[in-house]
Amino acid sequence: MGELEELRVETRVFADARDWGRFHTPKNLAMAVAGEAGELVAEFRWLTPEESMADHLTPEHRQAIESEMADVLIFLVRLGDVLNVDLARAVRTKLAANELRFPPVR
Amino acid sequence: MGELEELRVETRVFADARDWGRFHTPKNLAMAVAGEAGELVAEFRWLTPEESMADHLTPEHRQAIESEMADVLIFLVRLGDVLNVDLARAVRTKLAANELRFPPVR
Amino acid sequence: MGELEELRVETRVFADARDWGRFHTPKNLAMAVAGEAGELVAEFRWLTPEESMADHLTPEHRQAIESEMADVLIFLVRLGDVLNVDLARAVRTKLAANELRFPPVR
Amino acid sequence: MGELEELRVETRVFADARDWGRFHTPKNLAMAVAGEAGELVAEFRWLTPEESMADHLTPEHRQAIESEMADVLIFLVRLGDVLNVDLARAVRTKLAANELRFPPVR
Repeated sequence: MGELEELRVETRVFADARDWGRFHTPKNLAMAVAGEAGELVAEFRWLTPEESMADHLTPEHRQAIESEMADVLIFLVRLGDVLNVDLARAVRTKLAANELRFPPVR
Repeated sequence: MGELEELRVETRVFADARDWGRFHTPKNLAMAVAGEAGELVAEFRWLTPEESMADHLTPEHRQAIESEMADVLIFLVRLGDVLNVDLARAVRTKLAANELRFPPVR
Repeated sequence: MGELEELRVETRVFADARDWGRFHTPKNLAMAVAGEAGELVAEFRWLTPEESMADHLTPEHRQAIESEMADVLIFLVRLGDVLNVDLARAVRTKLAANELRFPPVR
Repeated sequence: MGELEELRVETRVFADARDWGRFHTPKNLAMAVAGEAGELVAEFRWLTPEESMADHLTPEHRQAIESEMADVLIFLVRLGDVLNVDLARAVRTKLAANELRFPPVR
């Protein structure tokens, strides 16, 4: 089983154990992704681009950022589960389409 | 190599071939995640929860949603790459923490 | 009538003339605000802070940014209308609360 | 002075008293708008459309929503200030353009 498939099963088991299925409509999960992405971008809003680099983040700030990244991925994986989307395949389809839109420069 | 690690390498190669490294600061990538999450949530805004279900989406709408989901994941994986975050591990750390915050009901 | 009240009436008339009332639930309008905010942040994602300054934007880019700002405000005002929120009062309440949280430095 | 112009002055005075000018680049303020819009959409994510209606919200939830709406507007007004955008005019320009895109049905 692929890693994203594993995460899909783990997050589904987690949600089912809490009876969250009725909340996890595609509409609501898309809102959850957007909400967590908002928290992620908020972590970076007052930093200069340089301050946002891995070497300049405090351990606490890095921890907070990882936590928000995890939340975005959890809800994205849940959305992929309820819509039956193969996320890895979707990424590769998009990269292939972007190959044509943005020709490599080197 | 895990699936997320594969996507990490593929999206890095893609970005490097276009000299996008200088744009891909953590700050900018977090903005890209938020921007794509905004496009994702916009796909669902006028649907009822029922209309957002897999069975009720038109093939075209489903296609658009998959494409936005891919964009969110691409930039999240790129952010994980530049910050050296293990996304699968971050998700599992978060799920473990949430086990304590939200006890299972069954 | 205050300016925000005027915009509230104008956007309500606009929505009513298109029979959009049934789409404009608070939930959906909050999604619309988030979607447009995502488009707004996307306009800035690859710019350095300096390039984002008023003097450095091209007229076309500035135009696109103003258009996204308008979209955010339109849906925020619509949300305020359906929830009967006085936005100006809400801002002042928040500023007063923030006065205590963040003491002035000069 | 119009109401939005008043809010513009009040939020600028607030930011200046805290020496926040250097943080308030257009790029950073767009991130702040997106971050607050994410918090706003998160308030609604698990509600049904019906539960999101004014009559069904608890006073505490309504309070939280108003607070997030205020935050979105504060940063949107600050962004309008640093970019010298007349928000009311931008909304009217957009509504006029939308008149052509979406003909009224009644």
